[in-house]
Amino acid sequence: MERKKNYFAGPCVLPLEVLEEVKDEIVDYKGNGLSMIEASHRGGMFEEMYDDCLSLVREIYSVPSDYDVYFLGGGATLQFTMIPYNFLMKGKVANYSRTGTWSNKACDDAQLLSKELSFGKVTTYYDGSYNNFTSLPDPESVVPSDNAAYLYLCANETIHGLEWKDYPDTKDVPLIADMSSNFFSQPVPIEKFSMIYGGVQKNLGPAGATLVIMKKSMLDRRRKNVPAYLNYALHSKEKGLYNTPPVFSIWVVKLVLEWIKKNGGVEGMYERSLRTSGMIYDAIDYSDGFYTSPVDKKYRSRMNICFRIKGNDTELEKKFLEEAKKNGMLGLKGHRSVGGLRASLYNSLPDSDVEFLRDFMEEFKRKNS
Amino acid sequence: MERKKNYFAGPCVLPLEVLEEVKDEIVDYKGNGLSMIEASHRGGMFEEMYDDCLSLVREIYSVPSDYDVYFLGGGATLQFTMIPYNFLMKGKVANYSRTGTWSNKACDDAQLLSKELSFGKVTTYYDGSYNNFTSLPDPESVVPSDNAAYLYLCANETIHGLEWKDYPDTKDVPLIADMSSNFFSQPVPIEKFSMIYGGVQKNLGPAGATLVIMKKSMLDRRRKNVPAYLNYALHSKEKGLYNTPPVFSIWVVKLVLEWIKKNGGVEGMYERSLRTSGMIYDAIDYSDGFYTSPVDKKYRSRMNICFRIKGNDTELEKKFLEEAKKNGMLGLKGHRSVGGLRASLYNSLPDSDVEFLRDFMEEFKRKNS
Repeated sequence: MERKKNYFAGPCVLPLEVLEEVKDEIVDYKGNGLSMIEASHRGGMFEEMYDDCLSLVREIYSVPSDYDVYFLGGGATLQFTMIPYNFLMKGKVANYSRTGTWSNKACDDAQLLSKELSFGKVTTYYDGSYNNFTSLPDPESVVPSDNAAYLYLCANETIHGLEWKDYPDTKDVPLIADMSSNFFSQPVPIEKFSMIYGGVQKNLGPAGATLVIMKKSMLDRRRKNVPAYLNYALHSKEKGLYNTPPVFSIWVVKLVLEWIKKNGGVEGMYERSLRTSGMIYDAIDYSDGFYTSPVDKKYRSRMNICFRIKGNDTELEKKFLEEAKKNGMLGLKGHRSVGGLRASLYNSLPDSDVEFLRDFMEEFKRKNS
Repeated sequence: MERKKNYFAGPCVLPLEVLEEVKDEIVDYKGNGLSMIEASHRGGMFEEMYDDCLSLVREIYSVPSDYDVYFLGGGATLQFTMIPYNFLMKGKVANYSRTGTWSNKACDDAQLLSKELSFGKVTTYYDGSYNNFTSLPDPESVVPSDNAAYLYLCANETIHGLEWKDYPDTKDVPLIADMSSNFFSQPVPIEKFSMIYGGVQKNLGPAGATLVIMKKSMLDRRRKNVPAYLNYALHSKEKGLYNTPPVFSIWVVKLVLEWIKKNGGVEGMYERSLRTSGMIYDAIDYSDGFYTSPVDKKYRSRMNICFRIKGNDTELEKKFLEEAKKNGMLGLKGHRSVGGLRASLYNSLPDSDVEFLRDFMEEFKRKNS
């Protein structure tokens, strides 16, 4: 089998050795006589795997013991509703930034709950629409409202290729971050955050599970009487097992976490991501303007690299994609909402595939300058 | 490998040939050079599989064309919130029955939204708590309120072993049913319902996806301004692909649907379920009182068979479970909330495992009478 070079923005490439372990175990999990996906979530076989997975999250990400860790379903998108539903109260303000598609969606849902259900107010501490979401606020300039319920940010905007490099100091105001697309790609000062969450389908595993890491004391600030699935207090109490969890996704996340651990942990992933993203940004920056990146250099994402050819030459971009496809390269088209090209370099993408992309870009430039 | 006999209530047994197909395809899907779980949900490889899966749902279940079909995450439990959030309005009433754990949870969430957010009223047309949820209302006795937004029922109570055999005629009032645990186990008169939904993790595939079948005209009765993930109108417009779907679960559901089709469709599953559940109910009924079923004979579930030994002899029940385990039998313990024993006989359980259970029950009775 010839593996495709997979630059999809998610779902995306997984470590080949993880896929091969899934292949080995999918019919008969460790000689138990059944598949992990046939096992009750109330039984020992699942529970042991689940506990191992949560422990790996804590170990690899250095999660303090006063934080809950669990998985939910519904994707990060469901969290956009759950966060204000649980934490935005009358008389309080939620501080959002609009830094791209994903924080916009989160902000929209908070504003909707604010307006429709009078759940408190929403303010925007930064709106990047003025420059088409190509930059981020200086973290030092970010000051929460006096009566803030929380301050929210999207740590990496998958579609616009923007990444926060440092985080605001919000003091007593809880800081909440969507880390879907840069999860476990770097060490994170967890104690700065009251909540970190993300869909697992980029750096961590197959689509279908959302990982939630939440400071237990956040629950002291919660709305009471929240419907069951939206209720963080209930999920905390049940460790994510209030109802049937997305078993397969969790199992594969566990295997990917083991792979991350074996490959240097988040420190190793960070070093690798600087090196690989640097390789592609260099190919852009030293192309004499053949390739350009619209993103403010200070906030370039290590995960999602957006670029254009010859000042938005869409014909040449189309040709780039066609030739890439012929070379077994997938997922290089920019998101339909921004156009252009995008390469996602998640944890599991082999170095050789990044080098292949760089060489391809240089060759394409030579032929089309 | 010795396959365990798997009577779990869900997640549960899947067809061995489906697991083997997953094994064959998990590293390289049909020679595409990547796994289905590595493919973008915006790309052709996923889309083709997804369309095939939705078509199989329509074909096997005879879903009329004026119904939407799509998958969501979050389990049936999230639907308990979404249904009243979308359809229960001020001035309207939602009619629920309390027939066991699952309809109770659905009713609780609707009542919570009714009380906390003034989304309308909730009434209960039947409450089975008076007899510990061992019976159901006569469908002919069920009359919706004049100003009902919808009438709700749980078609099969997994924990209490109760199943509706016929459905109320609610005329113009939309009928909504949770079919999680008897999905695709019998022909269903879809046109009687405005919405059918269920977690897939019993008869259809691995945990992580919820299948929604909804009459398009239901959306005319919806609340406006619903947060994104809770919003059926949005999911209808995007065919369940508003955000990243639970790809693996959907793929395996497709394989299970192909297996159902090959094995006689829902008619075949129905015939089989009558035969296999009849085998176990006979073992109970002809045991001279050694085994008893607490459930009203009219409403015995074909999927989940609850039974007790010698009028709730918990010591003997413990022994039964220990000996079952020694014989490679899993999942026969009743749910902690009701105690006793339970055998779940979902579509994918081989006939031979049902026969094995019957023989085991008869042998256990002989030795312990």
